[in-house]
Amino acid sequence: MISVQRSTQTKPRPSDDQLGFGQYFTDHMFVMNYEEGKGWDAGRVIPYGPLAIDPAASVLHYGQALFEGMKAFPQKDGSISVFRPEFNVQRLRNGAERLCLPQPPVEGFLAGIKALLKADSSWMPKTRGTAMYLRPTLIGTEGFLGVRPSRQAMFFVILSPVGQYYKKGLESVPIWIEQDDVRACPGGLGAVKAGANYAASLRAAQRAKEKGYAQVLWTDVTHKQVEEVGTMNLFFRIKDTVLTPALNGSILEGGTRRCCLELLREKGIRVEERPISLAEIRAAWKSGELEETFGTGTAAVVTPVSVLAGENEIWEMKKGFGPTARMLFDEITSIQYGETPDRFHWLQKI
Amino acid sequence: MISVQRSTQTKPRPSDDQLGFGQYFTDHMFVMNYEEGKGWDAGRVIPYGPLAIDPAASVLHYGQALFEGMKAFPQKDGSISVFRPEFNVQRLRNGAERLCLPQPPVEGFLAGIKALLKADSSWMPKTRGTAMYLRPTLIGTEGFLGVRPSRQAMFFVILSPVGQYYKKGLESVPIWIEQDDVRACPGGLGAVKAGANYAASLRAAQRAKEKGYAQVLWTDVTHKQVEEVGTMNLFFRIKDTVLTPALNGSILEGGTRRCCLELLREKGIRVEERPISLAEIRAAWKSGELEETFGTGTAAVVTPVSVLAGENEIWEMKKGFGPTARMLFDEITSIQYGETPDRFHWLQKI
Repeated sequence: MISVQRSTQTKPRPSDDQLGFGQYFTDHMFVMNYEEGKGWDAGRVIPYGPLAIDPAASVLHYGQALFEGMKAFPQKDGSISVFRPEFNVQRLRNGAERLCLPQPPVEGFLAGIKALLKADSSWMPKTRGTAMYLRPTLIGTEGFLGVRPSRQAMFFVILSPVGQYYKKGLESVPIWIEQDDVRACPGGLGAVKAGANYAASLRAAQRAKEKGYAQVLWTDVTHKQVEEVGTMNLFFRIKDTVLTPALNGSILEGGTRRCCLELLREKGIRVEERPISLAEIRAAWKSGELEETFGTGTAAVVTPVSVLAGENEIWEMKKGFGPTARMLFDEITSIQYGETPDRFHWLQKI
Repeated sequence: MISVQRSTQTKPRPSDDQLGFGQYFTDHMFVMNYEEGKGWDAGRVIPYGPLAIDPAASVLHYGQALFEGMKAFPQKDGSISVFRPEFNVQRLRNGAERLCLPQPPVEGFLAGIKALLKADSSWMPKTRGTAMYLRPTLIGTEGFLGVRPSRQAMFFVILSPVGQYYKKGLESVPIWIEQDDVRACPGGLGAVKAGANYAASLRAAQRAKEKGYAQVLWTDVTHKQVEEVGTMNLFFRIKDTVLTPALNGSILEGGTRRCCLELLREKGIRVEERPISLAEIRAAWKSGELEETFGTGTAAVVTPVSVLAGENEIWEMKKGFGPTARMLFDEITSIQYGETPDRFHWLQKI
């Protein structure tokens, strides 16, 4: 049974139009602890506040940190629905295996986010386009120094009411094709949502920002194959075929990527998941056959790319939302806000 | 000026023969904080204890974590000397740049470790072969969720009195040649001591341990070139030439590696820092020309390799310490304990 210790102080709440992304946190958090030999405890909802972490904890030294990004949406009847939580708990569990962390139990994960969303239900933003962002996180907490997996772990969830991920809202974003730094390689951590991948990505993202780009397009170690954009998977439409890089072990499978593939197949649109080279995209752009380029992600939903640029080239894309990106955005968001029947069973009411 | 708040409780102290590696921590720690716009504070020595870390801090989500490993040694006159601290502060500063963390100031770093070693001087082990291990650590502490570098950071140092790194003491160790997982790739974080590299390494190290091997030999993304052993750089002697992999951007430059190169060159031994393939080592082993294989590192000093083994091969090495490894071990440790004049200026008295 999850205990709930209510916060005695409540923070001031931002209005829906102030939200931005990941700037505000609610009054509570969910915390669950693991110890080798004992397993996971039942977890508890407690006031949001600093975690007490041993200075020798493995998360601070050996990068044993893994997270998820999820959203919950306000429904017309006043209830709250979480979007595809089973996908995220499964991805977190897969990642835990790769990072040698204990796997949080599926039931405990789901019960924890439900208890937390209930405790902070008054924080739920109401406007269409807003949501409650959930950040489940798993860290190694044992304090020791020889390199080995931690025998203690903490799973926690924090909540942040959010608006649009990109400052400019639903406009399309310019992306820089990275040719120096590498986010992840085969045999590495790219397929799991480890903090380590983001650590590797910060420098290139910062440089791209200084050049005026919103994000980086990661390429493989040879810098020839398209992989993903830091916080989004990438899709292209060339003539009537929609392409996205195949899951090759160094790409993170996004939940929104999976939704998009389901929707595209439902509509009978031709989709290919396969290796995609920069050369292929360059050729399609030159010939005028590159109709659409867009990213997908929990935070960004479906966001068109305005420009792909590298050291020696700038590929301007067709303006704004193309028909495929528009269809995917509309279908996904109308299911999320309960405006369209949930025919894929993506929502879970809390 | 570094303030010192002494601990009111002192922990029980292990005897020198109980130490092992990284199991005991002293009574105090050094902590220094950074905030964008304000810079670093002067730092303070405080009682060892849990750090209060915001649940949205970038170290818990985006892997902004970097550390160093250093040792301080008891000298015959009762004083304490730190081994090559300038090397470690410079490596940490280089790593900070790669991870988009603020660089701790050189003076503050050195003053911090000195103040801490003084506060815990009674913890200094005395037996030859023991040392005080220092773990300087730099983490991003700002609480936010959009992916970007943290604007707040913490630099802290903890101390652990240590004996031998490997449980069996100075015996040689069997090493597994990893052919699946990859620790780091070009364009990644391999050249800096980021927690992220260790996160990627835990699974293979655990599998190797289950097979009876002490550590993993990391190969490059093609699994053809020798890179490093998780906590050691690797050296080979083929006939009269000593080889070690060149610093290629995905290998961490160890302080002990650098000492060994200086010593080998002083002695007029032929040394080559260059790419080394597994095929070359296999051939040298088969022809009987592979005279020595040993690892070097702060924790392990100089440790001979007893066996290199992969899926389809086992290369048994010549037994125990060969003459090169023995010379390096003796020279380095006799300088560390002040038994030989410090002709390379490696020691810094505190």
